[in-house]
Amino acid sequence: MSATFIRPPGVPTVVTVTVPGPTLGVVGGGQLGRMLAEAAAPLGVEVVVLDPTPDCPAAPVARDQIVGDFDDPDAFDQLAARTDALTFEIELADSDLLNRVAADHGVSVNPAPETLGTIEDKLVQKRTLAEAGVPVPPFRQVDDADDLRDAVTEFGSVMLKARTGGYDGRGNVPVTDPDDADDAMAAVGGPAMAEAFVDFARELSVIAVQGDGEVRTFPAGENVHEAEILRETVVPARTTDEVLDRAEDVARDVLDTLSGRGVFGIELFETRDGEIQVNEIAPRPHNSGHWTIEGARTSQFEQHVRAVLGWPLGSTRLRCPTVMTNVLGTVEEPHPARLGNVERVLEDSEASLHWYGKDEVRPLRKMGHVTVTGESDVDVDTLLAHARSLREELRFEND
Amino acid sequence: MSATFIRPPGVPTVVTVTVPGPTLGVVGGGQLGRMLAEAAAPLGVEVVVLDPTPDCPAAPVARDQIVGDFDDPDAFDQLAARTDALTFEIELADSDLLNRVAADHGVSVNPAPETLGTIEDKLVQKRTLAEAGVPVPPFRQVDDADDLRDAVTEFGSVMLKARTGGYDGRGNVPVTDPDDADDAMAAVGGPAMAEAFVDFARELSVIAVQGDGEVRTFPAGENVHEAEILRETVVPARTTDEVLDRAEDVARDVLDTLSGRGVFGIELFETRDGEIQVNEIAPRPHNSGHWTIEGARTSQFEQHVRAVLGWPLGSTRLRCPTVMTNVLGTVEEPHPARLGNVERVLEDSEASLHWYGKDEVRPLRKMGHVTVTGESDVDVDTLLAHARSLREELRFEND
Repeated sequence: MSATFIRPPGVPTVVTVTVPGPTLGVVGGGQLGRMLAEAAAPLGVEVVVLDPTPDCPAAPVARDQIVGDFDDPDAFDQLAARTDALTFEIELADSDLLNRVAADHGVSVNPAPETLGTIEDKLVQKRTLAEAGVPVPPFRQVDDADDLRDAVTEFGSVMLKARTGGYDGRGNVPVTDPDDADDAMAAVGGPAMAEAFVDFARELSVIAVQGDGEVRTFPAGENVHEAEILRETVVPARTTDEVLDRAEDVARDVLDTLSGRGVFGIELFETRDGEIQVNEIAPRPHNSGHWTIEGARTSQFEQHVRAVLGWPLGSTRLRCPTVMTNVLGTVEEPHPARLGNVERVLEDSEASLHWYGKDEVRPLRKMGHVTVTGESDVDVDTLLAHARSLREELRFEND
Repeated sequence: MSATFIRPPGVPTVVTVTVPGPTLGVVGGGQLGRMLAEAAAPLGVEVVVLDPTPDCPAAPVARDQIVGDFDDPDAFDQLAARTDALTFEIELADSDLLNRVAADHGVSVNPAPETLGTIEDKLVQKRTLAEAGVPVPPFRQVDDADDLRDAVTEFGSVMLKARTGGYDGRGNVPVTDPDDADDAMAAVGGPAMAEAFVDFARELSVIAVQGDGEVRTFPAGENVHEAEILRETVVPARTTDEVLDRAEDVARDVLDTLSGRGVFGIELFETRDGEIQVNEIAPRPHNSGHWTIEGARTSQFEQHVRAVLGWPLGSTRLRCPTVMTNVLGTVEEPHPARLGNVERVLEDSEASLHWYGKDEVRPLRKMGHVTVTGESDVDVDTLLAHARSLREELRFEND
């Protein structure tokens, strides 16, 4: 049992919940904000989002959008003034600003902005985990090309990662030859870290929820990446029960290193000898947890709403084997988004469509996802093949 | 197989669907409009509602609300001008007005307004069904107290029903004594019909969906009413497979008598000898279909969106045994709505909360519902007891 249990599991939380509930302010109004708003509505919780893009994906579903940058004090003030609890769906949120407006307006903010600070710097994130005894790949700080050459000498092949600002593989450069050090440093363009390449058997992720005195984890998903972008999540992961248990234990240990309530997406490597190492943490609902909408008893988005408000968490039980596949922008150039052949997904008795409402499709942009659920005895390889065949039918049309 | 299949079942529909989809205009913004908007969002469909109450329950979730009465031509014009397809979630919508604005703006309206006209007059509804050979309880037109006395003489006990405007038992008066005829006529206050009391074994309902050349029915639910208001729906219904098959056949025959696409809630009596008779039809998603959100592969709300847009329908398969219980206004006098003890529902691993966002609680007003789902081998009596115990913990608080 993890030390993050303030009360033993099974003992009901003492919070009294009334509805209509508080209004939740969300920094960021992309697809995560949109799915948060979709999940909040049945609970009697209204959502206001802050996002710089007018009519952002969450806007049509949320009560309102405040248009402002992620470092705009006035916009944060407006958000805090009309909401009772704050959270964020992007790591770009300014943690100092979050702390200040939360204090000024007497509202809670979860997860703790300090956690955001810890996570947004990949070097600090890894150090924090390593110091807490959480297994991570070997890594070292890289300030210049000499540091990088030392890292390659020490670790062999490395992944050079910008300390801040990278996502979906952006800011990451693989380096195997010390002679490439200068070019690689130029490519990441700032302070970095180097991490030894992990010869992994598969990539897993655990969506973990820190509630008010309780912790829940969803069953681990198996992630299929391509060019460092998530393509599919398969649940249950195709590994042993021992590895699944270890992944859950590591996820709970990760939560112990973080502060504040909310959903965390914890990406893991399963090494060839069945060990678990932490790849990266997201302090928010995560793409690899989208399968929970159909596949689990409570979705990661509903859990995040509950957790941030200090409400009791829901069950994380698997409802059925589930595969989620991203619908990425399979286009060469940006153009207005129009996805055709959607009837193939709608007609399919096992498939569910999620469209994020983005106006423009861009190369590899996350535009939506399709979830496929099967009967309890289905082979997940079959389910994965099914999901891929549906995704491959979808076509972005160009006027 | 029902004659409403234009194409044989199993043959894919030929429609091509693109997202973002059309904007759906919904006349009525109560809880049904709210749950329609919740279901439309993942499909990339935006919803605009028309409702006379500012900030109606659907408003926080929908793209926008047009504030206007259900017979306000300007409001209907505004709605049609900014949406691509029209539907309604209340029988009060003016069918002539719907037809006119749909024609003026070149948008579709579903179900057909003619169907609304047929259904909203309970006498016309029953006549239409009877003429089509659909089994209904004996009934007759009642224009005055003499007609009512004749009906009581002919049928014994009758339910006197106002031909238009009644719902949740309002406008219905049971009459067993011819001497009560004058009082009963005064109580319903206008043209009426009398229907022989049905000595039913149980009340069932089938949520049926008329799509573009395809018909789907959800598994029949068993409804528990009290004082003519729905309290619980139990799925699967506790009856025989033969009765369930008959209920589905009757529901398909009912759809044959109606025009236009959409979800229809078909309330049925199962008589003591296992026959099915139609009680009432609603040309929209129905309270007795709320269980489909968690309990079926596709919810009735998503089906309605798909059907109205002419998109392929989803699977109506039962995911697991499910009980829905309404959260009614258990108060003596109207007051601002605040529901306490909600943590009991949130903590429960089998329960899901749905709050409709109504500002004021009134005696017996539908304020929300709780759905309880069980494992495939659960006894539905146990599930029903569980749902009731949760509902009984909920308390409306008075400041």
